[in-house]
Amino acid sequence: MDWNITETNQLTPQDIDRQGNKLLIGNGYIGYRGTLEEFNKEQKTATIVSGLYDKVGNQWREPVNLPNGCFVQIIYKGESLHALTSKVISHAQSVDMQSAVHMRETLFETSDGNCITIRSRRFASLARHHLLCMEYSISVDHECEVDIHTGIDGDVWDINGPHFVEMETYERDNVISVSAITHENAVRVVVSEAVLFPVENETRTTSFRDFDKVPIQSTLTFYKFISHVTGIDSTDPVKASRELCKESALLGFDSLLAEHTALWSQRWEACDIQITGDEEAQQALRFSMYHLLSIVPAHTERASIPARGMSGQMYKGAIFWDTEIFMLPFFTHAFPSLARNLLLYRYHTLDGARRKAHEYGFRGAFYAWESQDTGDDACTLFNVTDVFTNRPMRTYFRDKQVHISADVVYAFWQYFSLTGDASIWRDGGTEVVFECARFFLSYIYYNPDKHRYEILDVTGPDEYHERVHNNAYTNRMAANTLEVCRKVVTYLQQNSPEFFEELITTLDFESDLAFINDVVSNLYLPDSNPTDGLIPQFDDYFTLENLPLKSLVERKLHPHEYFGGGSGLATTTQIIKQADVVLMLYLFGEQHSLETKSVNWEYYEPRTEHGSSLSACSYSLIAAQIGKVDWAYKYFMKTATIDLSGKGKQYVGTLYIGGTHPAGNGGAWMSAVFGLCGIRCINDTISINPHLPAHWEQVSIPFMLHGQKLKITLTHEIISVKPLSPLEIPLTISVGESIYPLHATGEIKIQIN
Amino acid sequence: MDWNITETNQLTPQDIDRQGNKLLIGNGYIGYRGTLEEFNKEQKTATIVSGLYDKVGNQWREPVNLPNGCFVQIIYKGESLHALTSKVISHAQSVDMQSAVHMRETLFETSDGNCITIRSRRFASLARHHLLCMEYSISVDHECEVDIHTGIDGDVWDINGPHFVEMETYERDNVISVSAITHENAVRVVVSEAVLFPVENETRTTSFRDFDKVPIQSTLTFYKFISHVTGIDSTDPVKASRELCKESALLGFDSLLAEHTALWSQRWEACDIQITGDEEAQQALRFSMYHLLSIVPAHTERASIPARGMSGQMYKGAIFWDTEIFMLPFFTHAFPSLARNLLLYRYHTLDGARRKAHEYGFRGAFYAWESQDTGDDACTLFNVTDVFTNRPMRTYFRDKQVHISADVVYAFWQYFSLTGDASIWRDGGTEVVFECARFFLSYIYYNPDKHRYEILDVTGPDEYHERVHNNAYTNRMAANTLEVCRKVVTYLQQNSPEFFEELITTLDFESDLAFINDVVSNLYLPDSNPTDGLIPQFDDYFTLENLPLKSLVERKLHPHEYFGGGSGLATTTQIIKQADVVLMLYLFGEQHSLETKSVNWEYYEPRTEHGSSLSACSYSLIAAQIGKVDWAYKYFMKTATIDLSGKGKQYVGTLYIGGTHPAGNGGAWMSAVFGLCGIRCINDTISINPHLPAHWEQVSIPFMLHGQKLKITLTHEIISVKPLSPLEIPLTISVGESIYPLHATGEIKIQIN
Repeated sequence: MDWNITETNQLTPQDIDRQGNKLLIGNGYIGYRGTLEEFNKEQKTATIVSGLYDKVGNQWREPVNLPNGCFVQIIYKGESLHALTSKVISHAQSVDMQSAVHMRETLFETSDGNCITIRSRRFASLARHHLLCMEYSISVDHECEVDIHTGIDGDVWDINGPHFVEMETYERDNVISVSAITHENAVRVVVSEAVLFPVENETRTTSFRDFDKVPIQSTLTFYKFISHVTGIDSTDPVKASRELCKESALLGFDSLLAEHTALWSQRWEACDIQITGDEEAQQALRFSMYHLLSIVPAHTERASIPARGMSGQMYKGAIFWDTEIFMLPFFTHAFPSLARNLLLYRYHTLDGARRKAHEYGFRGAFYAWESQDTGDDACTLFNVTDVFTNRPMRTYFRDKQVHISADVVYAFWQYFSLTGDASIWRDGGTEVVFECARFFLSYIYYNPDKHRYEILDVTGPDEYHERVHNNAYTNRMAANTLEVCRKVVTYLQQNSPEFFEELITTLDFESDLAFINDVVSNLYLPDSNPTDGLIPQFDDYFTLENLPLKSLVERKLHPHEYFGGGSGLATTTQIIKQADVVLMLYLFGEQHSLETKSVNWEYYEPRTEHGSSLSACSYSLIAAQIGKVDWAYKYFMKTATIDLSGKGKQYVGTLYIGGTHPAGNGGAWMSAVFGLCGIRCINDTISINPHLPAHWEQVSIPFMLHGQKLKITLTHEIISVKPLSPLEIPLTISVGESIYPLHATGEIKIQIN
Repeated sequence: MDWNITETNQLTPQDIDRQGNKLLIGNGYIGYRGTLEEFNKEQKTATIVSGLYDKVGNQWREPVNLPNGCFVQIIYKGESLHALTSKVISHAQSVDMQSAVHMRETLFETSDGNCITIRSRRFASLARHHLLCMEYSISVDHECEVDIHTGIDGDVWDINGPHFVEMETYERDNVISVSAITHENAVRVVVSEAVLFPVENETRTTSFRDFDKVPIQSTLTFYKFISHVTGIDSTDPVKASRELCKESALLGFDSLLAEHTALWSQRWEACDIQITGDEEAQQALRFSMYHLLSIVPAHTERASIPARGMSGQMYKGAIFWDTEIFMLPFFTHAFPSLARNLLLYRYHTLDGARRKAHEYGFRGAFYAWESQDTGDDACTLFNVTDVFTNRPMRTYFRDKQVHISADVVYAFWQYFSLTGDASIWRDGGTEVVFECARFFLSYIYYNPDKHRYEILDVTGPDEYHERVHNNAYTNRMAANTLEVCRKVVTYLQQNSPEFFEELITTLDFESDLAFINDVVSNLYLPDSNPTDGLIPQFDDYFTLENLPLKSLVERKLHPHEYFGGGSGLATTTQIIKQADVVLMLYLFGEQHSLETKSVNWEYYEPRTEHGSSLSACSYSLIAAQIGKVDWAYKYFMKTATIDLSGKGKQYVGTLYIGGTHPAGNGGAWMSAVFGLCGIRCINDTISINPHLPAHWEQVSIPFMLHGQKLKITLTHEIISVKPLSPLEIPLTISVGESIYPLHATGEIKIQIN
């Protein structure tokens, strides 16, 4: 049962929202919420496809929710069987994470006392990314007739829709299609489905198929093969969509499920971490990886993972820094090719970042705070509604969170240094790095009085303090950007001099490069104070009001008032939204002593509100490093269970902002592997310094470095590292003060206690 | 009657507040509100003395309101005669501006039908600045007896008091004294009074004197001589105060009034502008000068003029940039020695400005936004209360309005170049200029990408847009600071090389001086766009929402909501609080073409809310220059009548913020003389380009330049300039394209139409 996530509640609307996220299935192209077949827009049914966005009027640009091909409604003697409104004797809904199949089983009691059980299974085919497959069965206690209403429901849930115009429906060869075009870019969107139904008394109405008075003796089962194709994927999406349905119907459900399951098995083999002694942690961590795998765009390098995954239109389906900083490590060490896809998305959206820099009067690339398909910024200047006046509140996410460009560069270098995949530089990475470096060159100022460069007027990770100067995180990340730029230059000069020379000329980068040297050595990096070791989050941070978080919360006059913004309660205090200095200490761990980490963790932890799902993992990671295993575990579980518990904030006013938290999922992996297991890679060395919770008996981790697959197994006594295939390049294991060369095939075991 | 400001309302509490300001009398040391003798703290009776501040607990530091020596209450058959609560047949209250005497005449009808008239006159002696003199008379229709309750009322109105501890009362030799010490610095404060009373049936209780059953046949008159001395003025304030009372009582009211009136006559002779054809303008302008003269500290160079004059504790009795930019021109051209006092106040508070710069991590002198006696900043970080949450709102007046230091330097140079008084440089001016220049050197940043210095993160005059970059006003003023610094250096090198060398060494200014040259030539000055001629008020100003002021006002949800601050309605729009670019165009008039002035006036005028009394005069001044005489007149009258009409905002919540507006008064003089009369001085040349309103037949202006007293008379046809004493240095008059040397004694008349 380890692999099953099961819910057995009697459903309420709140459960439906939560389970819609938690029990989502996806294959990186399609995300389908964990709703029931009889549900519609009211229950937030959604089929999101990667990379498709639309804007209507002045509303937010957001992902398009496709017509819902999974719709089925059973009618018994005029009575619609519906999990929310019918009499439900029992209901179970689950996802088998191993095969990424959603299942439901609901026992209805009809008003005349008949017991009808509905079961279904569905999956988003990992082998055929446009395809959703569904098996649906009806079992009865007493022989009866039911009406079955199924088809493609084009009346979809939208936050800022409707997104379709010219919707058409047609049917031929037993395949129904709904076709429409989007408002903004007139992209054709087609959903088709073939229904394999055992009887033939069918009537067809628009996009629905009605099977009336179907006799059921004990169980009736039918299948739907639903394809989703857009004009972005195909020059003839109608044809492509219909052919996929036909082909799939011929192959049949079992065969499609088999190929799907085989691919998921391979995935799990590459990443499944096994924890002995803590079933709860095991499930939460697996669940975190399940979600990351369900939404990672394996099929393209032109999409990335939105901050709310593929769970709907929330957060505009936008890609934030979440991907680079909190999700990439998992992919880098388990699926480098998927990490590469995610990175190259930034190359394909580089022009959008150039446009944004230009818009604000800078050079180079200023990445979108909220990035969609083009890389133009979907973030508005007003992101929060003031609860006291109901007015939009000016926030400085879009224009001041410049660290985004540095986060992208950080991720590129991490990928390169951990995978050894130098092709990334020729395939777009260099251009990204150069343009981001150039952006910071045009953003910085020189302080002649203090003889140093500074980075002014930014918003760091802690969004409760906007427009600050010399944010420790941002400055360090910008310095890193320039340093990475120099390292890439050195690498290319040595390895691809012609490519390098050509690019330098094309990008007119020579003079910028010369300037970087001066800036790198004179950029102000807020560092720990010699007396108390504290690093100021930004200039004058320590002059702000210093009070306990509890006291600040008590000042609230409205339960939903925003802590940040121009008049936010936290703005004038030291209370921060999320890890900022502590995240910096993690990302630049080698540059800071344990003492510095400890002092700053102790200072910032009680002042952090964790108003972001990105916060917990940083506190877990540093807690582990400084030996606070209980805290490391607590924060690990917090980030690992974020979508299991579904306790996050769901609504702002009437606006639904729930959804999945892939950065929290990625943070769970980081906290487990880098934090509790204490794994840290520098070049070809894996340093291992475990901080296992006492009740963890053993952890085993599939782990890739420089293309080499390893299995790392930890207990409280022994560290074992085993190559899963003969090593092609030498790796070294570092434990404590000792260094152990890893042999090409042999496992090494190191006694630690 | 031109010289009388008279009110004849039946008093309401609102009238009392308004008249308290409007009918204030003062001599620069004492300010006494225009209230009635029977009034007390409820009616905001106040005796403010210059330069005395106190702070109680965590409340705002504010001027001390001294015990009220003018108190008199007449009681007729147990019935207190009080203008608010008794039956008043007629009431007139006025100030004779010519002699600065406050008068009242109130006819009461008692419940038994007796008619009793109370008349009083009082003045704050210009000859003896610690002294208030009062004449009080009671006239009856029918012979009767009254009780007269008079003395010193120590129970005073306070905004953030009480300010006295250890209050003592004593009496000897017919002089009553109330003595106390202030909370914060234990400054002794003494108010004494001698009462010259024609009868003797007196009882004394604490600080009051009760004359019971005083028979009155027709009229009874008595006199009070009230002295106000503090430990700042005297080592033995009790003695000094009592002696002044005794001496004054011996001299008598008439004699003291005569010497007072003579001095006021001299003042009016030096400044009175006479307008023929517009009585309203005449009165308003005279009224403006009356107020400036009543509150200018003639007795000391250690005080300056607070933003609400001496009308109470409002605005903390603090000195703002108002003095330097809006009041000094009047004094410079009419009373240079008083201008000098005001300037040297900034020298005496230079250490406070140094402390403030240091507090914020800068060098040099960062003057207080709200300056009191020490020059430390009385401005808090939270200046406004949010009407929606009742929370203090963070504002950036104190920490970001850096132009204050540039305003001070601008004023020093104006004074020097218009009076020729070079002693100001040796007497402290140079140190002020150097330290302010140094402040900007430490505040600026270099933008390596744009190859220029910039001034970031400031609040300009328009306080609705805080924390902006490259505010056109601030940058130009900072550049001027550096240029003035260079000019002073050149002047001193030529004229006082030893003094200069010593100061440079003492202040360690050599390297700063070298740096100034580079900055001056590379400091970014936002200038008019070549296509439309517009000057951006700050970086990205034109990207803000562009809407009519009316539309913004319609968005208000609360009548008193503040337009600025973090969430203010104006913050994200182009609506500004007050003249900003337009003020800059006035102050640097020679550097901008009429076309630029015209284009920018037209753009900014409809976008200006005039939420500050400093705004109207700038719009008047530029309107005159660009030939919009109607607008120039409209804004002139707006600023000239600000305290006559008393229409300004009086309360924020329960906090009284009314008071007089000396900057508005100074602005009236500027608008009349520099605007409508078109007088502009550059070195020893007076350029005259009148824009007289059509109904103004003639204006004559006493005007000083380089110590030379002139009378300038304008009609629509003729400009006449006449030296009032033989010229010691040659001056030139410039009209249109022509230049006219002014002869040592002769008047010149220039036909202009």
